Amino acid sequence: MTITTIGLDADDTLWHNETIFRLTHARFVDLLADHGDETLIEARLADVERRNLQLYGYGVKGFTLSMIETAMELTGGNAPPEVVREILAAGREMLAHPVETLPGVDDALAALSEKYRLVLITKGDLMDQERKVAASGLGELFSAVEIVSEKTVDTYAHLFARHGTGAAEAVMAGNSMKSDVLPALGAGAFAVHIPYAITWAHELADAPEGHPRYGALEAINQLPGWIEQKEALLK
Amino acid sequence: MTITTIGLDADDTLWHNETIFRLTHARFVDLLADHGDETLIEARLADVERRNLQLYGYGVKGFTLSMIETAMELTGGNAPPEVVREILAAGREMLAHPVETLPGVDDALAALSEKYRLVLITKGDLMDQERKVAASGLGELFSAVEIVSEKTVDTYAHLFARHGTGAAEAVMAGNSMKSDVLPALGAGAFAVHIPYAITWAHELADAPEGHPRYGALEAINQLPGWIEQKEALLK
Repeated sequence: MTITTIGLDADDTLWHNETIFRLTHARFVDLLADHGDETLIEARLADVERRNLQLYGYGVKGFTLSMIETAMELTGGNAPPEVVREILAAGREMLAHPVETLPGVDDALAALSEKYRLVLITKGDLMDQERKVAASGLGELFSAVEIVSEKTVDTYAHLFARHGTGAAEAVMAGNSMKSDVLPALGAGAFAVHIPYAITWAHELADAPEGHPRYGALEAINQLPGWIEQKEALLK
Repeated sequence: MTITTIGLDADDTLWHNETIFRLTHARFVDLLADHGDETLIEARLADVERRNLQLYGYGVKGFTLSMIETAMELTGGNAPPEVVREILAAGREMLAHPVETLPGVDDALAALSEKYRLVLITKGDLMDQERKVAASGLGELFSAVEIVSEKTVDTYAHLFARHGTGAAEAVMAGNSMKSDVLPALGAGAFAVHIPYAITWAHELADAPEGHPRYGALEAINQLPGWIEQKEALLK
């Protein structure tokens, strides 16, 4: 047995994303400052997002719709037109935002792509994620790009079978314990947590300490070395 | 050479979709009746949708955002809160709408699935399309479900290679000349047009009359017979 395939999360693993959401959150709080303090507004938005996940899924379009809905709730159904227009504009700006890869990503991926099949596995809006892959300049390094509605054990089992030699010979790396690490381990893959500065509340979960296939790294430049170590142990 | 794989469009090929969009259009026109007649409102909405396609892609969430933007434009930036709330509600209802398969779909797909690999190929929102596949009860008949941001020649070449034995041995069937028929023919597949009662303006295109791999059918129950004829010619 050896490692043949590396799955990589995209948002907040390869490039900044949550930072852009946070900026929009701050703008949203400002817009509605007359109707509540930051804590209240953020709590209400989080509730609406959670309620809408099943309907809207992940991504900027659903987030924009949830912001408008939250503005309506906070104003007793009477959000002023300029608030709605500002939210629409904020959503559009997020969708047009330049893609900035995180430090070390380019080198790490270039090195990994020489030895392994790389598969990008991300949630979000189809069009938006495809745009970001293209704008990142990293597209050529991946043998497949998979945009999925949820990241479950089945998702990883299926994708590592389709694009590699099965989950047992694959590593998943990403910033979300809940979406990248735990279900990939559940599918029998290796999984590496590389935290981002901030994590969306819906993606938090405890680390699987002591799991033989789990790794926690500080930055993506440590990933090639970590994989080499695991490979040496497999031989 | 033989036929091994059948690609099927989903919306308006397997189940009603444009009808539900039309109902929402009618509701939208009513909502904004004080700001223009139907022709004007529809034209403005079509403009906004076209402008947003690159940003929002296909699907209900982008359509909902485009309706809100159009309402703002038609009211000089002052759409009343109740109009925005109604549009949000209409979008949510579309996303929760029951899935009603078109006449003959269940039998045709059951017959085809005994001889060929079936691949569902559709645009739209990830979560929404997955919900509809599940709700249709047809999911088990497909060996793959592919939700894509655009249907191009490359899309079909790639998907028929991945899930079948290449485009030359595949048939694509759908209601859109522009998205289902022309690019599939361009990839070297057979392609069958099965019109729906109404077609979204953005999906209109001329038929490729005289193309040896093109077929025009009235309903999906004619598809198994059409494919058998083509197979007989290939032998």
